[in-house]
Amino acid sequence: MESQVDRSLLEKIADLIGKPVGAFNIRKDSGCDGRQSTEHIQITGKEDKPGIDIRIKAGTVGETCHIPVIITKPGIEEMVYNDFYIGENCDVEIVAGCGIHNCGAETSRHDGIHTFYVGRNSRVHYTEKHYGDGDGAGGRIMNPQTVVYLEEGASIRMDTTQIRGIDSTKRDTKIVCGKGAEAVITERLLTHGDQVAESDMEIVLDGEDAKGRVISRSVAQDRSSQVFYPRMVGNAQCFGHVQCDSIIMGNAKIRSIPAITANCTEAQLIHEAAIGKIAGDQLLKLETLGLTEEEAEDCILKGFLA
Amino acid sequence: MESQVDRSLLEKIADLIGKPVGAFNIRKDSGCDGRQSTEHIQITGKEDKPGIDIRIKAGTVGETCHIPVIITKPGIEEMVYNDFYIGENCDVEIVAGCGIHNCGAETSRHDGIHTFYVGRNSRVHYTEKHYGDGDGAGGRIMNPQTVVYLEEGASIRMDTTQIRGIDSTKRDTKIVCGKGAEAVITERLLTHGDQVAESDMEIVLDGEDAKGRVISRSVAQDRSSQVFYPRMVGNAQCFGHVQCDSIIMGNAKIRSIPAITANCTEAQLIHEAAIGKIAGDQLLKLETLGLTEEEAEDCILKGFLA
Repeated sequence: MESQVDRSLLEKIADLIGKPVGAFNIRKDSGCDGRQSTEHIQITGKEDKPGIDIRIKAGTVGETCHIPVIITKPGIEEMVYNDFYIGENCDVEIVAGCGIHNCGAETSRHDGIHTFYVGRNSRVHYTEKHYGDGDGAGGRIMNPQTVVYLEEGASIRMDTTQIRGIDSTKRDTKIVCGKGAEAVITERLLTHGDQVAESDMEIVLDGEDAKGRVISRSVAQDRSSQVFYPRMVGNAQCFGHVQCDSIIMGNAKIRSIPAITANCTEAQLIHEAAIGKIAGDQLLKLETLGLTEEEAEDCILKGFLA
Repeated sequence: MESQVDRSLLEKIADLIGKPVGAFNIRKDSGCDGRQSTEHIQITGKEDKPGIDIRIKAGTVGETCHIPVIITKPGIEEMVYNDFYIGENCDVEIVAGCGIHNCGAETSRHDGIHTFYVGRNSRVHYTEKHYGDGDGAGGRIMNPQTVVYLEEGASIRMDTTQIRGIDSTKRDTKIVCGKGAEAVITERLLTHGDQVAESDMEIVLDGEDAKGRVISRSVAQDRSSQVFYPRMVGNAQCFGHVQCDSIIMGNAKIRSIPAITANCTEAQLIHEAAIGKIAGDQLLKLETLGLTEEEAEDCILKGFLA
């Protein structure tokens, strides 16, 4: 039976209103709260450890698979393994996400390892949103690990967002690109209060004509702190671009430590990073249009993280 | 008595032809080959360890101090400490540099620690060139460490160049900027053969309105490898910009691992890095003008490292 809390979390993290269309698996408080396979997408529970296997048949096009996780009780700590086997010539969307509602004193924590095996010429759009709420003193912690292997000609577009309310996160992302494969990662991250966030990322451009692009945008408010370690490694003729932009506010701290490594003459790698506060003239412009300073700030941050 | 080797090295590393004008100290094969103080610039040998103290009187403007080091015999390994005490309101030029001519089988090595204490509102232009030659199998090694403390309103423009012929180098640079102080570092580095180079740099923007700028340009040829660790730390209202561009050739490897750290909302920090090969259309254009491929490459590299 879905509660108001469940509904609110599922909408926040997976844009779900009501039962999803297509394949889905809803994990709630370490149990399965609903699962549906389709003709092309088969979801089965793992037998040796928590988590699921998602098998997508070759040639599956235009289908979506939702696999949200919600934690609504304090004191739940879990480690989940989800493996995705995606056949050749697919074009699919996978919507993950995790929401923690914590009204208690104990910590709630979700750690997940997602491993993707993406077959030749397949395209995957992977979306992952993280969100926490509840007025308990217990921490809301998420440590997602994402590993992606892209075969020849395969691609992944990975959009991850930490919306707000996550006290501590350590993100770990590794993508290995084969010949002609492409990874485009867009990371959005907001921290506030005393939150801490670390994002470790490695894109290995192994195959000829592999492409990697990372766009990381973050906002650190209050006394929160963020550290970014994006790494791009070129082992072949390839193109890699990393772009990190951060807005710093209050007494926050941000460190950005990217690395580009060229192990081949034909590797072309670029990195850009910037940390700064909201531009004063942008605020002023919005204030002259009638917005309060707070509204103007909010408007700029929304645009930046959109 | 100056030999042809001495003259050639001194011209390469310090643009010196004949005796320098103004204060100078020439270090040759671990001994003093000439020293001159002036009314405003006093050079004295250290008594407890190898090296010199350079004291520049407050208000010294338009003077130059040359302190080149040459090693012409194989098997010399030295560690030298040079300290610069620069009074307030100076505007001076310091020309350092090290040349190693090695015709033997033993390694020649110069390690130097240069420490600058730059008084209020003083401007220092510091030039340092490194060069090695000689047909011996013995290695030519240089490990320079440079530490600069800039008082309020002080500035340093630091131009360092590794021309060629240095088999192994580990560069270590640390600059601490006080209120309104400014550091502008331009680093040029060429490696070839099996050479290795590492450059570690930290600019700490400690004072309000401190500014830091790093421009690093490098070329890695043959099987050489380079690693860059430029770090910019903003602890106050400040502006920092790091820009690293590298040209990779042959079977070389380059890693660029910059870090920008904002510990203050008013810190504005930017980093850019790029690694790639020489643009094909640039080569083509020069070749259509009648240059051979080699000449065209050479021309582009000269421009890039100029």
